[in-house]
Amino acid sequence: MIRVTIWNEFIHERTKPQVQAVYPQGIHRVIAESLSTRLGSAVEVRTATLDEPEHGLSDEVLASTDVLFWWGHGAHDRVEDAIVDRVAKRVWEGMGLVVLHSAHASKIFGRLMGTGCMLRWRDLGERERLWIVAPGHPITAGLDREYFELPQSEMYGEHFDIPPPDDLVFISWFAGGEVLRSGCTFRRGKGKIFYFSPGHETFPIYHDANVQQVLANAALWAAPSGGGAYENRGRQISQPLEQFRPPTA
Amino acid sequence: MIRVTIWNEFIHERTKPQVQAVYPQGIHRVIAESLSTRLGSAVEVRTATLDEPEHGLSDEVLASTDVLFWWGHGAHDRVEDAIVDRVAKRVWEGMGLVVLHSAHASKIFGRLMGTGCMLRWRDLGERERLWIVAPGHPITAGLDREYFELPQSEMYGEHFDIPPPDDLVFISWFAGGEVLRSGCTFRRGKGKIFYFSPGHETFPIYHDANVQQVLANAALWAAPSGGGAYENRGRQISQPLEQFRPPTA
Amino acid sequence: MIRVTIWNEFIHERTKPQVQAVYPQGIHRVIAESLSTRLGSAVEVRTATLDEPEHGLSDEVLASTDVLFWWGHGAHDRVEDAIVDRVAKRVWEGMGLVVLHSAHASKIFGRLMGTGCMLRWRDLGERERLWIVAPGHPITAGLDREYFELPQSEMYGEHFDIPPPDDLVFISWFAGGEVLRSGCTFRRGKGKIFYFSPGHETFPIYHDANVQQVLANAALWAAPSGGGAYENRGRQISQPLEQFRPPTA
Amino acid sequence: MIRVTIWNEFIHERTKPQVQAVYPQGIHRVIAESLSTRLGSAVEVRTATLDEPEHGLSDEVLASTDVLFWWGHGAHDRVEDAIVDRVAKRVWEGMGLVVLHSAHASKIFGRLMGTGCMLRWRDLGERERLWIVAPGHPITAGLDREYFELPQSEMYGEHFDIPPPDDLVFISWFAGGEVLRSGCTFRRGKGKIFYFSPGHETFPIYHDANVQQVLANAALWAAPSGGGAYENRGRQISQPLEQFRPPTA
Repeated sequence: MIRVTIWNEFIHERTKPQVQAVYPQGIHRVIAESLSTRLGSAVEVRTATLDEPEHGLSDEVLASTDVLFWWGHGAHDRVEDAIVDRVAKRVWEGMGLVVLHSAHASKIFGRLMGTGCMLRWRDLGERERLWIVAPGHPITAGLDREYFELPQSEMYGEHFDIPPPDDLVFISWFAGGEVLRSGCTFRRGKGKIFYFSPGHETFPIYHDANVQQVLANAALWAAPSGGGAYENRGRQISQPLEQFRPPTA
Repeated sequence: MIRVTIWNEFIHERTKPQVQAVYPQGIHRVIAESLSTRLGSAVEVRTATLDEPEHGLSDEVLASTDVLFWWGHGAHDRVEDAIVDRVAKRVWEGMGLVVLHSAHASKIFGRLMGTGCMLRWRDLGERERLWIVAPGHPITAGLDREYFELPQSEMYGEHFDIPPPDDLVFISWFAGGEVLRSGCTFRRGKGKIFYFSPGHETFPIYHDANVQQVLANAALWAAPSGGGAYENRGRQISQPLEQFRPPTA
Repeated sequence: MIRVTIWNEFIHERTKPQVQAVYPQGIHRVIAESLSTRLGSAVEVRTATLDEPEHGLSDEVLASTDVLFWWGHGAHDRVEDAIVDRVAKRVWEGMGLVVLHSAHASKIFGRLMGTGCMLRWRDLGERERLWIVAPGHPITAGLDREYFELPQSEMYGEHFDIPPPDDLVFISWFAGGEVLRSGCTFRRGKGKIFYFSPGHETFPIYHDANVQQVLANAALWAAPSGGGAYENRGRQISQPLEQFRPPTA
Repeated sequence: MIRVTIWNEFIHERTKPQVQAVYPQGIHRVIAESLSTRLGSAVEVRTATLDEPEHGLSDEVLASTDVLFWWGHGAHDRVEDAIVDRVAKRVWEGMGLVVLHSAHASKIFGRLMGTGCMLRWRDLGERERLWIVAPGHPITAGLDREYFELPQSEMYGEHFDIPPPDDLVFISWFAGGEVLRSGCTFRRGKGKIFYFSPGHETFPIYHDANVQQVLANAALWAAPSGGGAYENRGRQISQPLEQFRPPTA
């Protein structure tokens, strides 16, 4: 059973009527319900938001989280650095991280990427078509065509300032003339990271069946799945594993 | 349920007493039993060998195979090109392929890699230590240390003439002074490929618990898991998906 | 000084008036002149075509070629397998290879990639915009914006059946609704390979200044530049490099 | 002409006699002289050290630096965060960065990698053999064998906590039983980064001819070489590049 926590800064939905109309209880609730519906007993889903104590991300919560979803937009700076450190450490230890839409500019994504993570954007509600460039990748499970479409989306375009992704899964085409590497995976320590760009707060992106399918796939893919020892701190080894002729002084 | 077929050229075990002593019924039988024991009802395992009609790899067998394991050594040239083509096509369509030990020099591996796939070797039975360089990778599940060892192994060393792997999972250290990228993943079409170098025919490598764990992990990892349309042949599209101003002659 | 050979099947230019109008002396001549003009004494440029003996690619020619450009379209099957083998072997030894446009379906590209290399296409002359997704890559030298455009181009679209490229340099946007990984690098043996998709025979693509800049960059980038021993054939090593305790029988 | 700055924390050489014996004027001076000797007028080399104002890395110095070498060991924490930010920004803009030995634990490397960057070590002066796993890579130019050796080296071993490198150039074998991905490249923004692990302060590593060759190659490879627009900050685009039907409210 995969323990998922959906984090949302949860501001727009309480302050902007047009966002409230699409996500009356918050983006996190819609994502949480969609994961529960699609994955059933394979997952246990909780939510956490910015205004909770420790942003809802206490040591206990993180220690019992297998995959963390992250949506943020206007309040990246209000996320405390100590919490960002805590999340990064858990990713290194193996927790999966699914970074959504405007969270490309979140502190945690920048910390893990080592780049500026910025891009170009235009908010006119144009058509976005997500082409699958890695058919067969687990994150594409259940998508049976070459692409899927979002009739109205915010354009996020190149150059997207990320390191070369390990796996490039989706490339988006936008009616207005841009492209984006819109589905990208990265490994950091033992943790798997997936960035997925669709997700605007007023277009009903997270109600879309294909988007929900991708997020469910991402939860399964990002769950801790491997062994091998990992240490965040170095270790001095005093004895050689094998005999060899030591130097003479 | 993952349908696995273990292919073995099955010659040494019938012709060389010292191989027969280690694998009396063939390498394929030991691998098959190990997968069945470890994965239980998650897999259904068959075997196929060189001397069977169509090398045991008829269209029907391949069509009902999710993951194909391949062990060959001295008779690569006896594998018919038409069968190699057939296997390659199935990999492109999504069948997983686990390439073992001396099968680095098999026709099918070379066909899928596009390189010579050769390496250096020395058969003195020296210690091999496999370091995990991708902790958290699904293929390392259940390995709880930084490395595992094989007390006697055939040295396979760099330069190993493969394309840069997608994921480098293991690097081997050899007592005699060499290293090898000994666990490597590749994607070709929708198919996932894992090359794993340990597997000599007289050292009891496939009886080793850690090796068996890696092979079980590889079967799960390589199983078809994703969507997206795939075509081996191109396709002309007569109509644009979007309206655009066509050129005037 | 980099010795470049431009190979062209050179059929359309002699048989179709509308191609002859754009490339009266052949695509290879335009590319050759453009490289000579842009790179001056840094290169020495020759051409070779399908109808010459050995397709113009004798052992002598290949042995004195640092970078081979390859344009083919309708006559891939007429290229002899022995010549394809010869070219592949030279790439492994370090010769650079720049694969152009419809040569995605050439024998040599398929041989080196290990995949079907097919894609979708539509020949209506729509706008193509090439976005730079790897700014700073040597192949983008001299391109000072985020993208460049071709007003009329043949659409080549995903899914493009190639292995994950080492470096993804360009992604193309097409007015009709598709995208393509249109500039991709691969390493095979010691050789560097660059696939670049623009290059239709009736649109004047190779007269475009930005395309010419990319091809000049590619010639410099693909030239042999590194050391390290390479062998296409394996090698048995009889003595260990280091002392170790040999097994007792 | 490539403008190189060699940065060294320059402490051990002034405080420890056994380091002073090997590097009487500092590690930075030996590297600087070696680059000047090998590359001649192709480079202009300066040095900078921790105790200089702004650690010798003023805006003016960085603005006129094409490639920055970085050696640090015991005083990573004394490097001011503002200077680290400044260096990171310059890398993103295109400055090359060559990270040496114990600088794997430097602030700047961790900032650009997004991981802990730690490893295992043992300081007994054992033999290190660096195997070339990417023959043909520019960083291997002039190395004509499969490997080169350092008779006495500090062991740095896996697991090395870095993101999967773009190019894996060297893998080290250590007599005591470990391996390391010892030569790795990464892209961040427009900047090229090379980590190279040999470089202990009491073994005369930077006097070794092969190591000097690698560092000279790295200076050439990491120099800014490409185009494409890069912005560290995002940009809102108000007008679409292409006409499309805007949504009706």
